[in-house]
Amino acid sequence: MSRLTVDPARFATLDALVRPRSVAVIGASDEKARIGGRPLAYMLERGFAGPIWPVNPKRPTVQGLPAFASVADLPEAPDVAIIAVPAAMAIDTLDQLGRKGCRAVICFTAGFAEMDEAGAAAQVKLTETARRHGIRLLGPNCLGVFNDAIRFYGTFTASFEKGWPVPGRIGVASQSGAYGTHIFSAGLDRGLGMQVVITTGNEAEVALGDVLGWMAQAPEVDVICAYAEGIRERESFLAALDLARRNRKPIVMMKVGRSQLGGAAAQSHTASIAGDDAVTEAVLEEFGVVRARTTEEMLDIAYAAAKRIYPAKNTLGVLTVSGGAGVLISDAAEAAGVAMPPMPEAAQAKLRSLIPFCAPRNPVDCTAQVTNDLTMIDTFAESVAADGGYTSILSFWSQTAAGRSLGPKLQEKMRAVRAKYPDRLWVMSMLAPEKVREYEADGWLCFEDPSRAVNAIAAMGRFGAAFAKAEQKAAELALPQVTLPETTPTEAAAKALLAEAGVPAVPERACATPDAAVAAAKAIGFPVVLKILSPDILHKSEIGGVLLDVADEAAVRAGFATLLERAATHAPGARIEGVLVAKQIKGAVEMALGIFRDPVFGPVAMVGLGGIFIEVLKDVAFRRCPFDVAEAERMIRSLRGFALLDGARGRPKADVAALAKALSSLSAFAVAAGPRLAGVDVNPLLVLPEGEGAYAADAVIELG
Amino acid sequence: MSRLTVDPARFATLDALVRPRSVAVIGASDEKARIGGRPLAYMLERGFAGPIWPVNPKRPTVQGLPAFASVADLPEAPDVAIIAVPAAMAIDTLDQLGRKGCRAVICFTAGFAEMDEAGAAAQVKLTETARRHGIRLLGPNCLGVFNDAIRFYGTFTASFEKGWPVPGRIGVASQSGAYGTHIFSAGLDRGLGMQVVITTGNEAEVALGDVLGWMAQAPEVDVICAYAEGIRERESFLAALDLARRNRKPIVMMKVGRSQLGGAAAQSHTASIAGDDAVTEAVLEEFGVVRARTTEEMLDIAYAAAKRIYPAKNTLGVLTVSGGAGVLISDAAEAAGVAMPPMPEAAQAKLRSLIPFCAPRNPVDCTAQVTNDLTMIDTFAESVAADGGYTSILSFWSQTAAGRSLGPKLQEKMRAVRAKYPDRLWVMSMLAPEKVREYEADGWLCFEDPSRAVNAIAAMGRFGAAFAKAEQKAAELALPQVTLPETTPTEAAAKALLAEAGVPAVPERACATPDAAVAAAKAIGFPVVLKILSPDILHKSEIGGVLLDVADEAAVRAGFATLLERAATHAPGARIEGVLVAKQIKGAVEMALGIFRDPVFGPVAMVGLGGIFIEVLKDVAFRRCPFDVAEAERMIRSLRGFALLDGARGRPKADVAALAKALSSLSAFAVAAGPRLAGVDVNPLLVLPEGEGAYAADAVIELG
Repeated sequence: MSRLTVDPARFATLDALVRPRSVAVIGASDEKARIGGRPLAYMLERGFAGPIWPVNPKRPTVQGLPAFASVADLPEAPDVAIIAVPAAMAIDTLDQLGRKGCRAVICFTAGFAEMDEAGAAAQVKLTETARRHGIRLLGPNCLGVFNDAIRFYGTFTASFEKGWPVPGRIGVASQSGAYGTHIFSAGLDRGLGMQVVITTGNEAEVALGDVLGWMAQAPEVDVICAYAEGIRERESFLAALDLARRNRKPIVMMKVGRSQLGGAAAQSHTASIAGDDAVTEAVLEEFGVVRARTTEEMLDIAYAAAKRIYPAKNTLGVLTVSGGAGVLISDAAEAAGVAMPPMPEAAQAKLRSLIPFCAPRNPVDCTAQVTNDLTMIDTFAESVAADGGYTSILSFWSQTAAGRSLGPKLQEKMRAVRAKYPDRLWVMSMLAPEKVREYEADGWLCFEDPSRAVNAIAAMGRFGAAFAKAEQKAAELALPQVTLPETTPTEAAAKALLAEAGVPAVPERACATPDAAVAAAKAIGFPVVLKILSPDILHKSEIGGVLLDVADEAAVRAGFATLLERAATHAPGARIEGVLVAKQIKGAVEMALGIFRDPVFGPVAMVGLGGIFIEVLKDVAFRRCPFDVAEAERMIRSLRGFALLDGARGRPKADVAALAKALSSLSAFAVAAGPRLAGVDVNPLLVLPEGEGAYAADAVIELG
Repeated sequence: MSRLTVDPARFATLDALVRPRSVAVIGASDEKARIGGRPLAYMLERGFAGPIWPVNPKRPTVQGLPAFASVADLPEAPDVAIIAVPAAMAIDTLDQLGRKGCRAVICFTAGFAEMDEAGAAAQVKLTETARRHGIRLLGPNCLGVFNDAIRFYGTFTASFEKGWPVPGRIGVASQSGAYGTHIFSAGLDRGLGMQVVITTGNEAEVALGDVLGWMAQAPEVDVICAYAEGIRERESFLAALDLARRNRKPIVMMKVGRSQLGGAAAQSHTASIAGDDAVTEAVLEEFGVVRARTTEEMLDIAYAAAKRIYPAKNTLGVLTVSGGAGVLISDAAEAAGVAMPPMPEAAQAKLRSLIPFCAPRNPVDCTAQVTNDLTMIDTFAESVAADGGYTSILSFWSQTAAGRSLGPKLQEKMRAVRAKYPDRLWVMSMLAPEKVREYEADGWLCFEDPSRAVNAIAAMGRFGAAFAKAEQKAAELALPQVTLPETTPTEAAAKALLAEAGVPAVPERACATPDAAVAAAKAIGFPVVLKILSPDILHKSEIGGVLLDVADEAAVRAGFATLLERAATHAPGARIEGVLVAKQIKGAVEMALGIFRDPVFGPVAMVGLGGIFIEVLKDVAFRRCPFDVAEAERMIRSLRGFALLDGARGRPKADVAALAKALSSLSAFAVAAGPRLAGVDVNPLLVLPEGEGAYAADAVIELG
């Protein structure tokens, strides 16, 4: 549904940044601990295979390598160049690199937009210089990139004191250098294989979206961990999320600045436009990106995702030796939205015949009895997999798995069952740190805490559902023809514009004669409301100028006469244009629909239940425009107050289909109207009972 | 406010169960791995100081100890006896122990209420036997208890294969044996000192509340971890929570069965009455018990609580080397409800003069610059403590703390600053597992994940606030005199009963004459509503029998005449009793108040905004009855829709004081009315603008 304007092939232009064959370091230092010394030291220690060219006008060699006095003296254009010179020299250095023919540059140098106005101005020049030469520029003010698969270290992070990356295909993309390497280090402490880490810093040219897009198509990366403070660029970002989903590469993202407090800190920390968090949240959800609240959660999810098992319809079967843990896991599964259907009746009966006091429904509690005698545990485990058919199986063993006597026996039996069903997500929750590597080697995911296991399992299902959705052919959404007026339209004009685009207003017609009123009422459908129509009478009800429940032709004629008579009596001299005949709306649910323009993602639609629901409870859903009717209905169903549309409190069910159609049409209108459209408010939209439609009672269109 | 009927001294009667000087094991086994063998093996290995008497009719010695053929043969009554015999013999064994003079028994034996009807009946007999002898009975179907401080092991858990308890004063009280030892084992893996663990099993006599109460007064325990599936007993439980709070002992509790799914599993797992989760939640909140959602969260909180620093007004200062982490921590603090006030302006200016590009507001981001040169880090840390005055200080260092060069320097500087402010909660978030023990020895709390650190810090503030509240003298709440009628009262009678108790109804008076109506209107206050009063006229408005906005004496007289005339015209022959004069209520906020009887905790009050708020959004607050006006106001302010009472959408502020008074009065009424009161519904209660009161428009009282 998203109209992507970025060719995925463009992401491959970052190859030289992450997978270079030759490297130059401008401002190379002989001291290994200095910013200009670290990349060289790292690549020399790890054994980067290509040529490394230090540029340093003051030394013949740098860290044992022959040095070059200037960029111009380089033997040829390097695949990538690292700029580690003071800010005052950075732009000139970039220009020299461009003239030399270099097309990928990593700029460590700080003192640009993150600092002050002058720095921001310098950054604009830096960007212009990069664009003029067609250079893909990472940074400035970034910690750089490393790709341990080819031993390339274009970074000055100090985080390798704890150890080098271990093999694995989890990629890290981060706007923050410090937090990006924090994720790497925390992952390393757990043994996670994160061989590619890219930090984007000030994003003068390469933005987070470019990096995500590169990872989405790079064979080095299966799973993407992303850290963002604010999305500054739209097209690459959306194209990257779309490509990752189509390539079945899960993205787990931390986007900080969720709170008001955090939002303020994010803006002081970077030169970022933090954007509205709710909009980012909606965009991530649109593409099946799972948002992690903590680093720990991100790493849990990445760890599980590296198995590359993403059930499109995830179900969880639980095998436990503790009833208490079973209850706890059930609570966690409900909170995380993971289905735990019961075991088939026959399977339950079978298990009950084996251990009379077991509770085999799901959670399958085989009771502590099994820990005294493991002979039946494989039968239980296999029944959960085969009879239960669950896509994910969580097995809770507490400290039993660590037992000297039972531990090895348990491991052997569980290994055998798992091997028969390798397509499932098999997860152990146990207190046996020393056994974790062994179980992992057998193909298990291991978590100490069962609640964390459930969260990770839930994320795998969300990825699976998103990947399955990407495979469905989305109906191409037809955009209406919209011609915005020169100036802000009146309410009537706004309603007319929207009605043309598929958002109907409450049907009404101005009628000068009784005959016209009768015809209008027949067209609209009885009962109708009659209102006196006069530019001079503002408060119609005060003079009895509104008649409700006008039920038939005779009543319309009588009402027409009554209204004219009342106008003559109570407002003598008022110009009377006739009578407005309008559809009588009763028992409607009041909704509010709106469009606003997000500075990054463009027009965004909002829907909520009217009045207090929006103003007090902030019970609203957002989605980037345009989207189809099915998506609109998902938004509507996500509202906490949806029950009000669904027959709560003895009401008839509301016409959700008509509401969804109006919402989807509004989203198409917003895109078709183009950038002059600043916002739309349809409030209220009156939703009648099923089959009777949904009508705008008021509408405002704002132009920019 | 709670009326406690349990003398805290009663909890000391559990001393013999947890701190015995002599132990008998009935059904003692020579095999160390058997249920009847483990307690002996554990105590022998650990060196329990008192005599251990195995009872086994078939052997002269058991595990090297002289054995006794029967309970009668024991040299004297043991302080505690452990029953490890089959179910069929358990009751008789308990009776023998009682006759011998034993007053504390731990019953491992299963096959009682957790099994079937016959087992439940046997459990009733077991309880009767214990009560007859005045025995404190733990179990049956429990894993027992251990108290490593005196090397007492009255348990058959297999969890010591990983190691013995380490010193520390965190106590574990658990209804589930398997989950109780899971908590212990998980704590041991982290080095937490949990020397006392008590599991209650079927709770035939000793319930969770007794155990919590014992811990609340026992010097062995500073911090209590509790695991519950359902609270079966009220008095001890409430007294224990109250005592723990007064003794400044924090309780962190997992109460599973939160979800519908979990609730079902909890019931199949134990013979527990799970009770309504929302009521338990309200009771825990009342006493400042912090509810943990996961074992990990429980252990994080217990770990922090063991420092015994509980700020009554908690504020968080953050010192970070990563702006991104600062934002993340701000998000987490807002979500957890921890205040992060900014640093004083002068202190900010001082820090800015030291590191120009630092962000010193709070989070205080001293930037990565500081990691190249630690000379200023102690100045920054001290400023956060001294100038900021925060009660909790979280310092984020990622992997820097693990650095070979910077690590030791950082540790030394931070140690010095911390030592000057030992009353603060000093918390490190770092990726340096090998440094954790050293920092802990310096007095720091260490967390890898900053979000988990924030959660633990938040819990310390919640404990502190609860302890401070316990120190305030709560006004004794006067209960009204209530005499319930024989049968369910009519609406009018219900309103009258409630009005007497302090929940006023909409003022109205039946008047037979115009003079009486004028007097009534004057008493109630103008404007009033007049309604025709006749047992024969059910739908007053249909005959024009209701007059609104009756503004003065003349209008009352005129209205009286009009109503009688309309009645004569439209309902000839109806018996007319006169006119009802009622207060005119306009612009009120509709609330719903209610009382229901929880099977465990007795009368519970509920308050919510009327209509959709309750039915669709479940936006309600609960509290055990009775409670004072301040507590009632806290409940009201906790509603998501509170803004509606607080002047949202241009309304005047509602009379929250009158609402709170009505709610508190209702709670006192519920207690005073006694157990015959099954429930009360006041719906709606109309809350007028500030100073104008709150009035019940309808009320139902149900009797049981």
